[in-house]
Amino acid sequence: MGLREVMRELHWSPAEKKIAREAYDAGRERVLAETVAAFKMRAAAVSTPEEMWAMRDFLSERGRDLDFLLDYRYSQLSRVLGQMIGRGLLEESAVAGLDEEKCQIIREVAAMVAKGGD
Amino acid sequence: MGLREVMRELHWSPAEKKIAREAYDAGRERVLAETVAAFKMRAAAVSTPEEMWAMRDFLSERGRDLDFLLDYRYSQLSRVLGQMIGRGLLEESAVAGLDEEKCQIIREVAAMVAKGGD
Repeated sequence: MGLREVMRELHWSPAEKKIAREAYDAGRERVLAETVAAFKMRAAAVSTPEEMWAMRDFLSERGRDLDFLLDYRYSQLSRVLGQMIGRGLLEESAVAGLDEEKCQIIREVAAMVAKGGD
Repeated sequence: MGLREVMRELHWSPAEKKIAREAYDAGRERVLAETVAAFKMRAAAVSTPEEMWAMRDFLSERGRDLDFLLDYRYSQLSRVLGQMIGRGLLEESAVAGLDEEKCQIIREVAAMVAKGGD
């Protein structure tokens, strides 16, 4: 089975859902804050029309990236949490309490992302 | 004949083309500078992700608006110069030297735009 199928069949207990929700919310808040900060820094440096139009592409790319990153479906959540950890948005300890299968997926995704596979 | 057909049949002398080019360039430079300034003012006020994404819409709308405004074809140029004057980007004196037919179109468009018809 591929990762997609494995993730689709994971069972999330109520306790795990609570842990995942908190971790997700923290990672989401952090990535959005970082994106807003990056936007503002770049926008402040804009001085030509070309640089201004480039901000449209910046926002479109970030929008697509965040749509994928912030997909809160249980069939995606292990990948999402792994990506967040791999990007340094979350500590691995934030997902402590999830079962071993999920933790393994999360660690694998995180390692891949940290190596630049994201 | 409608305005579109009238504009398509206008003849532009070399002297008129020179006047129109200078007026257009001045109006273009001014509207782009104003748009960059408006962008930077709004971007500096962004503090939430929602406000940041709204900048994408702002840039898309301005992009469409400027594509229409900055259409440098002789079949469009009387309308373009009229719009620029109506928006206060150019003085009417900037088009002095164009023939009466063009000046009339320019004045009509400028008046319509100034009244909010743009």
